[in-house]
Amino acid sequence: MKKNILLKFIQQVWNEGNADAASEYIASTYTIYHDPGDPWDDMTLDLEGFKTRVLKLRAPIPDQYFEIQEIFEKDNCVAITWLWHGSHLREIADYPATGKRLRMSGATVYYFEGKHITGHWQITDRLSVYQQLRQNSASQKEKE
Amino acid sequence: MKKNILLKFIQQVWNEGNADAASEYIASTYTIYHDPGDPWDDMTLDLEGFKTRVLKLRAPIPDQYFEIQEIFEKDNCVAITWLWHGSHLREIADYPATGKRLRMSGATVYYFEGKHITGHWQITDRLSVYQQLRQNSASQKEKE
Repeated sequence: MKKNILLKFIQQVWNEGNADAASEYIASTYTIYHDPGDPWDDMTLDLEGFKTRVLKLRAPIPDQYFEIQEIFEKDNCVAITWLWHGSHLREIADYPATGKRLRMSGATVYYFEGKHITGHWQITDRLSVYQQLRQNSASQKEKE
Repeated sequence: MKKNILLKFIQQVWNEGNADAASEYIASTYTIYHDPGDPWDDMTLDLEGFKTRVLKLRAPIPDQYFEIQEIFEKDNCVAITWLWHGSHLREIADYPATGKRLRMSGATVYYFEGKHITGHWQITDRLSVYQQLRQNSASQKEKE
């Protein structure tokens, strides 16, 4: 079942941060079909490129965690809706680390070829993250 | 098939703006479980409340259209990913109408009880809409 493969991929690669494990899950190329705000939006990556993306996206929020809400499977794809949270431990888009918890929600469709993931289409509520970054940075400055 | 019911609902109620047609599709109550930025987020509406929501959300962008990308069905729910576009013809969040095209993408899970929709969980890339509103309003001012 592609569903189970996807859940293991999310857990090992994104939740535990084991970028090397991606080699078990992704196809020889991985395309980001749609992911507004993602620096790799519209790009096709090889395994090394994909691992770099995982490491760079996880670095400022190393304890980030995707909590799956719903999961759907059909033909060659699996869709998930998710809540995400993690601690802001390194600079993000010019906002210095505050150590505070960030929360976001989103939905992703993963495309498969056989047992391997060939890419994704994703929407995240990135506005809410900027609102939290601004608010946390303002309350940090008030304390100083 | 719940999938077909949902596609008719989207077409008639949201794309054609026939709010009255909602009575055929929604249950006696409709809950917005999660929809960051939606003024009715976290609320449970009756039929009249739901129609009001449709009319208010469609009013500033009366030709708005949801173009379905993927559709998934399981148990009691249907998930869709979509691209949305429409012309900005009345004020939105203090941004005066420019007549310009707005575009957004999103994903929605609709929950069913039998043939009726009982609510939804939704993510939209609302940041991109604010970016377009700001940009359109700035280029309008430059012309004046």
